[in-house]
Amino acid sequence: MSPRNPASPAPPARRRDSAATKEALKHAALEAFTRSGYDGVGLRQIATAAGVDPRLVGRYFGSKAELFAETLELTTESQPMVPPITQDAAAELLTRPRAEDYLNGYLMTIRSTSNPEATAILREFIERNGAEPLAARLTGPHRDARAALLIAINMGILLMRDILGTTALTNEQAKELVPYLEAAFKAVAGSRDEDAEPDTGLGG
Amino acid sequence: MSPRNPASPAPPARRRDSAATKEALKHAALEAFTRSGYDGVGLRQIATAAGVDPRLVGRYFGSKAELFAETLELTTESQPMVPPITQDAAAELLTRPRAEDYLNGYLMTIRSTSNPEATAILREFIERNGAEPLAARLTGPHRDARAALLIAINMGILLMRDILGTTALTNEQAKELVPYLEAAFKAVAGSRDEDAEPDTGLGG
Repeated sequence: MSPRNPASPAPPARRRDSAATKEALKHAALEAFTRSGYDGVGLRQIATAAGVDPRLVGRYFGSKAELFAETLELTTESQPMVPPITQDAAAELLTRPRAEDYLNGYLMTIRSTSNPEATAILREFIERNGAEPLAARLTGPHRDARAALLIAINMGILLMRDILGTTALTNEQAKELVPYLEAAFKAVAGSRDEDAEPDTGLGG
Repeated sequence: MSPRNPASPAPPARRRDSAATKEALKHAALEAFTRSGYDGVGLRQIATAAGVDPRLVGRYFGSKAELFAETLELTTESQPMVPPITQDAAAELLTRPRAEDYLNGYLMTIRSTSNPEATAILREFIERNGAEPLAARLTGPHRDARAALLIAINMGILLMRDILGTTALTNEQAKELVPYLEAAFKAVAGSRDEDAEPDTGLGG
């Protein structure tokens, strides 16, 4: 029989099992990397925020870069950094209520590019999670490049509207932009083959 | 007659005139803000890098925010953060050699958005230097919003190509994207009035 009172609070961090400790570290890392970027935060700080002995971080993640990479994966659990670019994408991008939750991966990105190792991780992550699935849905030539360009347009809007709060993208005028952005997406996603039947270039 | 030997090195910073001191502070600030963002650097650090007594920064700039704002203006002296979006803009954006010099203002932007005061300065700067001059060259409705969207597209490409180095935007395929990006710019910059004569929507 356990001597522990069943009504007592959760056991302290040092008694947590390995999976829970790792999860706590990743969530503390998400908060820290999102706010301060890769170079702006130390492993000790993350461990302390997670209630974990800093000497254990290496055991769980090997390196700061590995923790960063695993934390980036975490951002896609609730919300992909690069949302699927569907026919509703323009309206979604230009009219959704501005909020922090869908920006985590993006904030980690723009705040971590001072570090070459983090930049390489981000590039690979965005290619794998954003550009590759999107390219697979395009038809016609240069699909990888066109997918990357679609994602670039998406990212620019996140910066100008959601992060900087540019007046003309956040006031009543913004919804009037939807057909313009739809046309821009179509110009990149649609086939340029003049014999092809006109469509958005996006299946599903 | 001055006792100073005319062949002696430049006088130390504390003897420099006020304009030279201010210029030295702004150049040190540019280097620091570009690398570490607004919250990642202190006034003392900037003053030390410029060889200026930290106690004098307040006399010249009043506040860190004011120094940031004046430094941002400096980035447009050699290269506008938001290049004019002309008919050659797509080719320029997708094929110019990647370099640091034209990215200073952009790096200051993406690395400083953790600070609300810096974010407000950046928003106003981009609206005044990028969106407003561009809107003045557009015709048709919603010019402010369309100009902001054109700049957003521009900024997304800077992030994905120039900063992150996305493979498909930096290899040989990238130049094949030029007509797609031209079409996307035209979709936003051109008039949607079907009776209007077709053009790029961009004068001169």
